[in-house]
Amino acid sequence: MKLATLHDGRDGRLLIVSRDLQRAVVADAAPTMQAALDDWSGIEPELRRQAERLEAGSADSFAVDPLALDAALPRGFQFLDASAFLAHNHILADAWGFEKRGEQEPPLMYQGISHRYFSPHEDIAFRSSADDVDFEAEIGVITDAVPMGITAQDALVHVRLIVIVNDWSLRAFGPAEMKGGFGFIHAKPPSTLSAFAITPDALGDGWRDGRVHLPLEVWRDGDCFGRPLGGAMHFHFGELIAHTAATRDLYPGTVIGSGTVSNYDAEQVGSGCIAERRALDALARRAPTAYLGNGERIGLALAQGNEKPLGIIDQIVRIG
Amino acid sequence: MKLATLHDGRDGRLLIVSRDLQRAVVADAAPTMQAALDDWSGIEPELRRQAERLEAGSADSFAVDPLALDAALPRGFQFLDASAFLAHNHILADAWGFEKRGEQEPPLMYQGISHRYFSPHEDIAFRSSADDVDFEAEIGVITDAVPMGITAQDALVHVRLIVIVNDWSLRAFGPAEMKGGFGFIHAKPPSTLSAFAITPDALGDGWRDGRVHLPLEVWRDGDCFGRPLGGAMHFHFGELIAHTAATRDLYPGTVIGSGTVSNYDAEQVGSGCIAERRALDALARRAPTAYLGNGERIGLALAQGNEKPLGIIDQIVRIG
Repeated sequence: MKLATLHDGRDGRLLIVSRDLQRAVVADAAPTMQAALDDWSGIEPELRRQAERLEAGSADSFAVDPLALDAALPRGFQFLDASAFLAHNHILADAWGFEKRGEQEPPLMYQGISHRYFSPHEDIAFRSSADDVDFEAEIGVITDAVPMGITAQDALVHVRLIVIVNDWSLRAFGPAEMKGGFGFIHAKPPSTLSAFAITPDALGDGWRDGRVHLPLEVWRDGDCFGRPLGGAMHFHFGELIAHTAATRDLYPGTVIGSGTVSNYDAEQVGSGCIAERRALDALARRAPTAYLGNGERIGLALAQGNEKPLGIIDQIVRIG
Repeated sequence: MKLATLHDGRDGRLLIVSRDLQRAVVADAAPTMQAALDDWSGIEPELRRQAERLEAGSADSFAVDPLALDAALPRGFQFLDASAFLAHNHILADAWGFEKRGEQEPPLMYQGISHRYFSPHEDIAFRSSADDVDFEAEIGVITDAVPMGITAQDALVHVRLIVIVNDWSLRAFGPAEMKGGFGFIHAKPPSTLSAFAITPDALGDGWRDGRVHLPLEVWRDGDCFGRPLGGAMHFHFGELIAHTAATRDLYPGTVIGSGTVSNYDAEQVGSGCIAERRALDALARRAPTAYLGNGERIGLALAQGNEKPLGIIDQIVRIG
C-alpha cells in the first residue's frame, strides 16, 4: 500500500495512492498520516480495502499532482537519525584519521528536528555557502507506537512505512558539535521526506531482513552522484528501533533514519553525500568536490528495476 | 499570569490560575497550551483579561487539585536542553580531569524528547538502578514561534512562559554517548515539567537579564539537597534561543532548558543533580553519594521569599 499527504494546513490530508503513483483517493479511515499512525493496527485494514478499490478503478480517484503533495508526514514528534552504514564512517575515518566505529559497538544515533519536514519539491533556503551545505541520501522508516524495551526482532513489526529522507547537513558545524558531545543543533536543519510512504510489502523482496535491498539513486544537477545499495546497512531497522527504545517509548510517527546510504566500493558506486565524496577525494589526492552552491538541484529516488517505487525527491537549494 | 493544563487526553485543557495557585478557570481563548502558543500574541491579551477576572473573583472558578494537573505543556515539538551553568561543567571537569568549557565557547545544547513530558506528581518508572538514575533541576522557558537567525536580544521577547524542568538522566550511558558525538539517546528519557507555567512578569524582579534570579530548591526524600541560584546562568535564555535558532526556526511550544542549575559554591549551596554532588565528593575525598534507588522521592521548587511561584514538582521513582 502506498500513502501520501496532500498540502492542507500543518498536518495535511491523508491520501491513498495507486501502485504506479499516478492516481489517488482521499483516505476515509483517517484524516492525516499522524492519525493513521496513532491507531495503525485498527486503521490499516480499512486503508488497504480502500487501496484495493483504487486499483480496481475508484470513481472518486484523481490524478496525482506531485507539486500538491507535502512530505508524507509533514511533522511528527520524534526524528531519530542513525549512522547505520559503517562504510560511511570507515571511509571518513580513513581519510581524516579518526578512530573507526567498530562492528560490535552500538549504533550512533541522534535526535533531530521533527516539527517540520520539507516537502519533496520545495526549494530549501540556507543562509550561507560558508556553512558547507550538504545533502545526505537516507532511507527512513516510520513507526507506530513502540513500547520501551522492545527487542530488535519484535521492533520490525513497528516498521509501518518506508520513506526516503534527505537529511540536509551544514558540515561547517559538525566537527565542533560532535566534539562537544551533545550532538547536532546547528549542523542539522530540517530534513526532507519523500511524498510517498509505502508499506514494506509494497517493495516485495526489496524489503527483507529489516533492510531495503535496493539502490538509492542520487543526482546532483542532473548527473548521477551515487547509486549505493541500501542492503549494505550494518544495523537493520529493527535494531535501530530497539536501540532508541531501550530507555524511552517511541511515539506514533517516529521517523528512524538510516544515515547516509554508503557502500565500501563508493569509488565505484558513488556516494550519498558530498562529505563522503570529499573523503574519497582526499584518499585519491584529488581536488575536493565542492559543497552545494546557490541554485543547485538534488534528486533522490529508490530504484527497483525500471521503477521508482517511492517517487522522487527533486529540490533546488537557495543559499544566501 | 499563571497557566496550567488539566489532565484531559494528550494535550489537556488550558487553565488560567490565580497568583496564589489556589483557584483556576478553564481558559476561553484557547483549548490547550499548544493552541495558545501557536498564536500567543493574539491570544495572550484575552487570557490576561480572564486572569484579571479570576483575581477579582470569577463565579466559575474552582479550587486547584494538584493531582488533576498535567505537565504545563503535556507534549511539544522541540525540547532543546542546554548546559548553561558553567559552574556545573567546571566542577565535573575538576573532579574527572576533562577539559573545561570556556566562557567564550558557544553553549552546549542537545535536542531531547518532547513527545511527552511527565506531570509533576506522577511516579516515574526506570528499568534498573544499574542505569545510575539521576535528576537534573533546571529552569526552562517556553517559546512561541521564533524565526531563524534571531539575535539574542530579540529572542528574549519569545520567552513567553517559565517552567521548572526535571531532566531525568541515566548517568551510566552519558559518557559513551558523549564520546560518540551524536548526543544522548539512552541517557535522556522524558523530562518532567512543572504544572504551572508563568509569564516572566509574574516573577517581578526575579526575572531580569534573561535569567531567573531565584534559588531552585531541591529535596531528596524530604532533605534539602541543594538551593543553587538561577541567576548564575552563564548564558541567558535569549542567548540559548538565538543559538538554537541560528540554522532552524523554533516551533511554538519549544522548551529551552537551562541545564542543571549550579553555582561555584556548590559545596555550600548544594547541587541540582547527584552527578555534580559526586564530583564534589571526589574532590573532597568523601564516599560517593548514591544515585537514586527505588522509592526515592525528588522535589523541586523555585523559591521567592516564602512563596513557591511555580508550585512544586514532587515525584517518586520506581526502579526495576
